Amino acid sequence: MKFYSKLGGALLLVALISMTVSSFAFAESNLQKVMKERGLTEKDVLAAAKTYTPTGGRDEYIVCSSGGQSGQIIFYGIPSMRILKYVAVFTPEPWQGYGFDDESKAVLAQGRINGKDIVYGDTHHPAFSETDGDYDGKYIFINDKANPRIAVIDLHDFETKQIVVSPFFKSSHGGCFVTPNTEYIMEAAQYAAPYSSDFVSLNDFNEEYRGGLTYWKFNKEIGRIEPENSFTFEMPPYSQDLSDAGKGPSYGWGFNNSFCTERYVGGIEKGRPPYEAGCSSKDTDFLHVTNWKKAEELVKAGKVSKLNGAYLITMEQAIEEELMFLIPEPKSPHGVDVTPDGLNILVAGKLDSHAWVYSFEKIMKAIKDKNFEGTDPYGLPIIALDTALDRSVNVGLGPLHNQFDSEDGVVYTSIYVDSQITKWNYRTGKILDTIPIHYNVGHLMTMEGDTKNPDGKYLVALNKLSIDRFNPVGPLHPQNHQLIDISGSQMELLYDMPLPLGEPHYAAAIRADKLQPVVRYKTGWNSRTDEKSEFRCRAGREKVVRDGNRVHIYGTLIRSHITPETIEVYEGDVVSIHLTNLERAQDEVHGFAMYGHNVQLSIEPGKTASATFTVDKAGVYPYYCTEFCSALHLEMQGYMLVMPKGYKAEEKAIIDGEKYTKADYEGQVATNIATQDVINQVVGFITSHNYKDFPIVVHLVEDATDQLGFAEEAKGKSEAAAAKGDFQNAMLWANQWWQYQVKTADLGLRAKTHLEQNGAKKIK
Amino acid sequence: MKFYSKLGGALLLVALISMTVSSFAFAESNLQKVMKERGLTEKDVLAAAKTYTPTGGRDEYIVCSSGGQSGQIIFYGIPSMRILKYVAVFTPEPWQGYGFDDESKAVLAQGRINGKDIVYGDTHHPAFSETDGDYDGKYIFINDKANPRIAVIDLHDFETKQIVVSPFFKSSHGGCFVTPNTEYIMEAAQYAAPYSSDFVSLNDFNEEYRGGLTYWKFNKEIGRIEPENSFTFEMPPYSQDLSDAGKGPSYGWGFNNSFCTERYVGGIEKGRPPYEAGCSSKDTDFLHVTNWKKAEELVKAGKVSKLNGAYLITMEQAIEEELMFLIPEPKSPHGVDVTPDGLNILVAGKLDSHAWVYSFEKIMKAIKDKNFEGTDPYGLPIIALDTALDRSVNVGLGPLHNQFDSEDGVVYTSIYVDSQITKWNYRTGKILDTIPIHYNVGHLMTMEGDTKNPDGKYLVALNKLSIDRFNPVGPLHPQNHQLIDISGSQMELLYDMPLPLGEPHYAAAIRADKLQPVVRYKTGWNSRTDEKSEFRCRAGREKVVRDGNRVHIYGTLIRSHITPETIEVYEGDVVSIHLTNLERAQDEVHGFAMYGHNVQLSIEPGKTASATFTVDKAGVYPYYCTEFCSALHLEMQGYMLVMPKGYKAEEKAIIDGEKYTKADYEGQVATNIATQDVINQVVGFITSHNYKDFPIVVHLVEDATDQLGFAEEAKGKSEAAAAKGDFQNAMLWANQWWQYQVKTADLGLRAKTHLEQNGAKKIK
Repeated sequence: MKFYSKLGGALLLVALISMTVSSFAFAESNLQKVMKERGLTEKDVLAAAKTYTPTGGRDEYIVCSSGGQSGQIIFYGIPSMRILKYVAVFTPEPWQGYGFDDESKAVLAQGRINGKDIVYGDTHHPAFSETDGDYDGKYIFINDKANPRIAVIDLHDFETKQIVVSPFFKSSHGGCFVTPNTEYIMEAAQYAAPYSSDFVSLNDFNEEYRGGLTYWKFNKEIGRIEPENSFTFEMPPYSQDLSDAGKGPSYGWGFNNSFCTERYVGGIEKGRPPYEAGCSSKDTDFLHVTNWKKAEELVKAGKVSKLNGAYLITMEQAIEEELMFLIPEPKSPHGVDVTPDGLNILVAGKLDSHAWVYSFEKIMKAIKDKNFEGTDPYGLPIIALDTALDRSVNVGLGPLHNQFDSEDGVVYTSIYVDSQITKWNYRTGKILDTIPIHYNVGHLMTMEGDTKNPDGKYLVALNKLSIDRFNPVGPLHPQNHQLIDISGSQMELLYDMPLPLGEPHYAAAIRADKLQPVVRYKTGWNSRTDEKSEFRCRAGREKVVRDGNRVHIYGTLIRSHITPETIEVYEGDVVSIHLTNLERAQDEVHGFAMYGHNVQLSIEPGKTASATFTVDKAGVYPYYCTEFCSALHLEMQGYMLVMPKGYKAEEKAIIDGEKYTKADYEGQVATNIATQDVINQVVGFITSHNYKDFPIVVHLVEDATDQLGFAEEAKGKSEAAAAKGDFQNAMLWANQWWQYQVKTADLGLRAKTHLEQNGAKKIK
Repeated sequence: MKFYSKLGGALLLVALISMTVSSFAFAESNLQKVMKERGLTEKDVLAAAKTYTPTGGRDEYIVCSSGGQSGQIIFYGIPSMRILKYVAVFTPEPWQGYGFDDESKAVLAQGRINGKDIVYGDTHHPAFSETDGDYDGKYIFINDKANPRIAVIDLHDFETKQIVVSPFFKSSHGGCFVTPNTEYIMEAAQYAAPYSSDFVSLNDFNEEYRGGLTYWKFNKEIGRIEPENSFTFEMPPYSQDLSDAGKGPSYGWGFNNSFCTERYVGGIEKGRPPYEAGCSSKDTDFLHVTNWKKAEELVKAGKVSKLNGAYLITMEQAIEEELMFLIPEPKSPHGVDVTPDGLNILVAGKLDSHAWVYSFEKIMKAIKDKNFEGTDPYGLPIIALDTALDRSVNVGLGPLHNQFDSEDGVVYTSIYVDSQITKWNYRTGKILDTIPIHYNVGHLMTMEGDTKNPDGKYLVALNKLSIDRFNPVGPLHPQNHQLIDISGSQMELLYDMPLPLGEPHYAAAIRADKLQPVVRYKTGWNSRTDEKSEFRCRAGREKVVRDGNRVHIYGTLIRSHITPETIEVYEGDVVSIHLTNLERAQDEVHGFAMYGHNVQLSIEPGKTASATFTVDKAGVYPYYCTEFCSALHLEMQGYMLVMPKGYKAEEKAIIDGEKYTKADYEGQVATNIATQDVINQVVGFITSHNYKDFPIVVHLVEDATDQLGFAEEAKGKSEAAAAKGDFQNAMLWANQWWQYQVKTADLGLRAKTHLEQNGAKKIK
């Protein structure tokens, strides 16, 4: 018997294993079929599982990437690599109404150059605001390289709030990088130019052209840059490049790369060797080290003079006050990155194969000891390379940018020429791993990788070319962001993501739970100034205010009609249409577009947006809601009638195309009563379940209750008309009453489905 | 012994099972770990495997989606759901240089309304060009609802080539839909308006406002619409909506939905019920049936008159010539879809719960028999509903749009209020399956689902709201396209994709292998007119041509310099900069941005693009390449110097910031010789392998050979300068020679890596 029992035990074991297997077998056999069909390896499936995010799932990190010459910034999720939003910053974008509504036009107008509207930007390096060296999820800053400007984007609503123009520079690449408490936003010049806006000959390049570095003062309370409290370091006409702020022990200091310290002026059209030859002849360029804390004190003490209306610390003053120092660094470097502990500064030279590890302590010692190897042509003290360096490490051909791991000492460097990422240790100089990427990587990014506390986990390689990576879409290809798993000792490629618009240069990833944006605005809100709009309007208070040829229309939007539905103005009038979205429901955005006038507003719940334009031609101009908001969305329409000057309207009324009888009215009422029965059943289902445990459902119920209130109002109007024997209007209002019932039912059914699908319980 | 052998057998079985498992176990154990960590179900993993596309993988279908009020169109891949490109159509977009270069400005200028530039569009329904009822992959057409226009996008380079403006309408929703050989593109009006551009009172709505349907003639040979050969049907002031063209037996006919056949004019601000009430009071609206083939003959025969410079078939003529008929259809319908075999027309009414199946045969019989139930107020004959209908099927609350399966009779309908997709059979009326979606679905799309030969396989639900689906990004949410597997009998949800910019309304999916876009242009190409640019320039032929204050600059771009590097002009000059990209390498795009002048060009290999502007202020304006093109990209720069009027340049030369000696020169030459050794090794590796079997490598080798040629040239200049004892220039040209070597090495290394990773074989 023992025999059988033993065998029985073994068989049981078999059965158990079979079960373990079979509990996975359903998927597995299907999975193997799919793998075969699609040519996937096991590694592919693993990568798929590490990135795939099911419906309703959330990403762990949110990336803000620059959008290059699109002028916008891009938000996407990690690990799903799904792009969530392009936020308009320097370029008008009609979906967001950006550069179309008066409120955002006022933001763009802050960015004018020489009085001219600039209708694009070249965004390069986004920076999240920081508190104590960690991202705080409040703001994003982004620079425009082409027209040196900085923009502030508020993460409470993902909208651009402010643009400031450099008072000195004519291009700016080395921004944005923030100091550990966002005291300042660093912005370095790129191509040297005169500080004046006048013509200065290139013959006077060495004497009159200048670079520089601005520390823009940021006021965290109000979320705006204060140009009046910002200051700029005058710098030699080298091409200053990227920046980073010191932290921990190096707090109070800033670091900038540079190239073309040869101060070479090209002219290939005249037979001179081109810039690329002259700007890369020397073996080294200069790391610029600035003491912003001491500079701030001088500014506060009134010891810094102004030029072009802004504080400028001249090179003379910087030398005298010991505010700025130079250190040789490898040829044509790009990234300069302060380590999480603030003790080291890493520099990678694109035309070199080394990453160079500078010691902040050694730099400070050299400064303290006045241990300089000399000065540059402008008298700036130079600290000798070997005095400041901990080590240099051979990381591959064309190192470009460094980002940090959660593990102390571990850093990742993008390698341009070798098209790879190198993982190494900057304390030991040991190479830990490499992984090939496709192709021509620029910057790279780890999770919160430039904060005091990097998270590790994932790395993204920002590849600039994508030949043969995706289905072809013409000569202008997308860029390619490759997601790499860095949680293990070896890097593993997970995902290739095309960027469909713009050329990202730099990106930063924040923990998703640090972002808590609002879902709607307070009623009547000017989202660009973050205050109640003077043009807000409540339901029933819509009006037209005319003063000569200046007309203000105060209107409202609610699904599914625009008030007013007719706008009557005269040729030559200057018209402002101010619209407030009355919806309380999340996501119930309305748009407003009008034929032939470049009017396109995006009006999220609560927002008031305005469009001002001149009506220069008599005619008929339809307008409508551009966001599919409801079943009767297409009927959310109206006409602007521009009458010739002096036109006198006839006293005739509109003749309805259809006539309705008492029977029509009674038929509609019967339908409405039947519809109300359906609504009551749905309401009964919802209220007999624990719907209050489901925030989404609570929200839908609130909205449905609103709609039912509107239905009641329309019902009242219908009955009043019927009582007067006006069955034309009785029928129309009865239909409007039904329209609100349909909206109620729509919400109710969505709520019911949600409860059913999410295991709501019946209340006893 | 037997005992042990039996037990042994069982153990062996265990071992075998373990082995079967273990052949999958490596991935599986990791997979289960990942599943547990990320909370994935087996169904999720299967969906991941069905959509995940590994690096370098290709999608099976390419979708073109409209971008709504962004004014653009969007291309993405299925099943990966990765967005490949936003193509600029009606809205200027700087990354593509669209609306920034003279060539694309000329396209946008075609879309002016009342002489005014329109800087956005509201794109709704993209249509692929067709040959014999199937997509041919040549062109995409898209409409602008707000400013009634149609654009032509050429799929050989994914660029917008033409915009035409409706000569009659003031809004247009029911476009674009093409006839089976793209003879015509259908565009229906939306909101009725007078055909004249003058003011007409709303009191005259019934008499003077009109809808309509335009058949735009498309010339496939040249890829352009011919407005002079297009014609429009005058239609009553109903709101015409979507369209579709007959095929097979119904070839030659067109079908259009409509709403608000009540001809209701709102006015809620005056106490009138709003449009939404008055436009949905009747139980039915009208399907419009038009005979375009017969109309075309009349046009060709000179029997159609013109209005506003275009052919207009009046209602009177349409009645007389039997060109247009009406049939009742369910209230406020949206999609009208001709079945693949052309025998039926399906209509779904948003305020109804039925899809209605019309019979083309029955419609033709009614027309032949003149079996009409009466006429509408404009005298158009009405075919009775029951005369034309095969059946109506209860598909759910709020049916919106129908798309076809590869299986005969099977159709999918998006259900707005119930938030679901219903799969049913239009021959039997049987409901086959339903699947819930999130939320508020608008249109839906199957693979080539509106052609004669639908592919089935996948379905995409275009959901208009995305509350709670993704990480929140402020009050303006992305849209949500949900991918559904329809290859089995039951629909299965695979993927949620956020749309980061714009509000898609409609999409079409084409088999990816039908698209064969070019990767570069012929040299000196104007991509918007598709011909050689009159402003093209060859290497070494760069020049400045001045005529009074009109200055033309003919320049070139090649990595990494712009010729010219200095542009000298005078205040008040009107300047045109024409730049030709000399690269032959795929993907080697260069950009060109200039400070303060709204100049931002995207110049793909071969392209010539131009920027024309007035220099109204003396000053210094840096310019640079905006596409990261090479290691020395940042050095690809220059200055435009705007001199005050009458300024006389001094005769002094530029003083170089750095001086080079014979030793510097010789050092550089030594470096170059060493670099050449490395290059030779890489070349040796490549040529000793079967690299010619790898098209990408062949391409890289071609490019590398070019670069090496340039290096040789620079070497020559360097040696010539050295021979004259000019070591300054000798050193600089030697460095330039090295720069070309670096570019060569970069390409060579990429080629070598590709060969290594793709199993190239050594040639014996």
